[in-house]
Amino acid sequence: MMTSISGGVCTPHGFRAGAAAAGIKKPGSTRPDCALIVSERPATVAGTFTTNVVCAAPVRYTRTICERGVARAIFVNSGNANACTGERGQQDVLQTAEFVGKLLGIPSQEICIASTGVIGVPLPMDRILEGIKGCVDALSEEGNADAARAIMTTDTVPKSFATEVAISGGIVRIGGIAKGAGMIAPTMATMLCFLATDANVAPEPLRHALRSVVDESFNCICIDNDMSTNDMVLILANGASETSALVPGTADFVRFTDALRYVCTELAKALVRDGEGATKFVEIEVMGTSDSASAKQVAASVARSQLCKTAFYGQDANWGRIACAVGYSGVNFDPANLTIYLQGIQVLSGGCPVSYREHDLQERMKEKEIHVRIDLNHGLGQARFWTSDLSVDYVKINADYRS
Amino acid sequence: MMTSISGGVCTPHGFRAGAAAAGIKKPGSTRPDCALIVSERPATVAGTFTTNVVCAAPVRYTRTICERGVARAIFVNSGNANACTGERGQQDVLQTAEFVGKLLGIPSQEICIASTGVIGVPLPMDRILEGIKGCVDALSEEGNADAARAIMTTDTVPKSFATEVAISGGIVRIGGIAKGAGMIAPTMATMLCFLATDANVAPEPLRHALRSVVDESFNCICIDNDMSTNDMVLILANGASETSALVPGTADFVRFTDALRYVCTELAKALVRDGEGATKFVEIEVMGTSDSASAKQVAASVARSQLCKTAFYGQDANWGRIACAVGYSGVNFDPANLTIYLQGIQVLSGGCPVSYREHDLQERMKEKEIHVRIDLNHGLGQARFWTSDLSVDYVKINADYRS
Repeated sequence: MMTSISGGVCTPHGFRAGAAAAGIKKPGSTRPDCALIVSERPATVAGTFTTNVVCAAPVRYTRTICERGVARAIFVNSGNANACTGERGQQDVLQTAEFVGKLLGIPSQEICIASTGVIGVPLPMDRILEGIKGCVDALSEEGNADAARAIMTTDTVPKSFATEVAISGGIVRIGGIAKGAGMIAPTMATMLCFLATDANVAPEPLRHALRSVVDESFNCICIDNDMSTNDMVLILANGASETSALVPGTADFVRFTDALRYVCTELAKALVRDGEGATKFVEIEVMGTSDSASAKQVAASVARSQLCKTAFYGQDANWGRIACAVGYSGVNFDPANLTIYLQGIQVLSGGCPVSYREHDLQERMKEKEIHVRIDLNHGLGQARFWTSDLSVDYVKINADYRS
Repeated sequence: MMTSISGGVCTPHGFRAGAAAAGIKKPGSTRPDCALIVSERPATVAGTFTTNVVCAAPVRYTRTICERGVARAIFVNSGNANACTGERGQQDVLQTAEFVGKLLGIPSQEICIASTGVIGVPLPMDRILEGIKGCVDALSEEGNADAARAIMTTDTVPKSFATEVAISGGIVRIGGIAKGAGMIAPTMATMLCFLATDANVAPEPLRHALRSVVDESFNCICIDNDMSTNDMVLILANGASETSALVPGTADFVRFTDALRYVCTELAKALVRDGEGATKFVEIEVMGTSDSASAKQVAASVARSQLCKTAFYGQDANWGRIACAVGYSGVNFDPANLTIYLQGIQVLSGGCPVSYREHDLQERMKEKEIHVRIDLNHGLGQARFWTSDLSVDYVKINADYRS
């Protein structure tokens, strides 16, 4: 049984964070828009990144650092994606990393860079450099809340989460912050998330743990279906817990991975809860498929359906749209075996409508959290997926994001 | 050069249509909700159907008729999809076909059936049978407008279109009606469309022509991304033009196919123009891919992007979202070669932003029709795709469709 502890990315030992207002989107703005996370000692790093061909300059740069597996700090700005900015965008990332490294006394190749915001506008480097100075001045073990707030774009609340887990040599802590309320797609790590742990993990096991955990957390959510040019999930592991190196295949490694999954799942669900314009948090549970990949495919199909999402917004028990989205998911099955529950009430059994009290279900649809259970009665595969509804406010927010 | 002629499904010789109000969704309603199209003589038939596993009973039934290739009539109801209705749904289709056949004196195996509307509710068969009587009584060569109106659901205008084409033996006519303003996805024939021609075409060539044409018309549009349980495109060819049988590989067959493509493309674009809540008609033109399939995949990715569609609604020249959707389309390319034009104005060239007059482009974005041109500079493949914007009204319409 996992328990949360207060805090976030500074909860593990040996991490500090700081934020500053650089006026990246609007010069002179006092809204914090850049953040820095620093490990007091060398750390291993792993990351998962957008698979978008049109990826931002910082994504390419930080991917290379993760291939090497060693990093000490993460600098991130919101308000500007530094995507579709050509050669200049890449130069700007290098300059950013060098300036951070110079101020911290760390090699620039150990500084991960991330950006989020508007596409196609060059970074205002003078203001970015000022922002870096501000972040370095603000670095503190209490800096989690400020950093979580500085990386927000259309998010309405900051997201941070932490847990601790006992392994044979002592306690290790895992914490993180995340942002992202749009451009959330289920294909890959699709938002910004920065995780820290004081566990002692070598790069390759850390990569392995992160990939498997992201696949069941951040890759199981969607808000809209757009995959960003900038998304990344990074984890720094600095070993400050002074516990032994975690080795794959051991009970300790499983405990660590479970704790990491817990943190990532809670952060992922927090993203969906704060989805642009979201009024509902919807859990789609699929079972009875031949394998878990098929279950995830069916769940994603429902989670991504505009018609299902507008029905959730309308508090309408329109299970026909759910059956429809199951049918076009690409997974083959016998529709005569399809069973659907909405809010625990069976509405379709063996492909036929079940009579239920319409009024009871309508009342249950008014709840903030919606639960859909789909059973294909065809095997032991199962998966869960989380999505928001599609509201009038979603459209309003995105119709004039740039202005 | 193709020209339209007034009319629709009754424009080809030897076709009649009729409609009636059966109160299928609401008993007593005087809104026409069923339609009948009849050929005066035996005709060949071809169809394309939804690929949704959860397909409606009439889809399964009519698919079998199209495999045989001979039909005389099409009966269609709106207001109820007869999907997810189990064994009873299939019995209802058989009873419908038998009753239509009895009244017309035609074998029931030559009556195609189609439905559109709410999923999971059994057909009110007593009212359907009354509706059939009404349709038969109303059959007329002037029945096109009533039939086009009767098949509407959330459509705001009826859609019909006709053309004629000279082939070596004389003139043949092609006309049709279509409906569908939601549940439009680019994966397959994804709405209802009923086409008639007095050309003389055997079943297999007719199938071939229809498939290739649908692929470039109805399969190149999207409004939302939901593929219906009920979609179908049917064509009846009755030879009443008294011209010779059209043979694939001849110039006459090419002329016929071109005319059929013209009718289907105009009807497809009419569906997009009347998309649920649509305020914009958007054409996405993609070129420079290795083949036309890749071009279509890139165009579809942009056409389906919620973020692009909300930006079109907001009249925002947010080309970064277009570049982003191109990047996650699944087609590989070098982002340093990507060029994008919006309303004829170049905004991205070789992966770098182009400076343009923001005010000029903003003004052009206020136009009702939006044109996006994307060049990957990588080959000779090209494709066009049509989509609507995603508006506040779309969400409102779909949030309470059932009530």
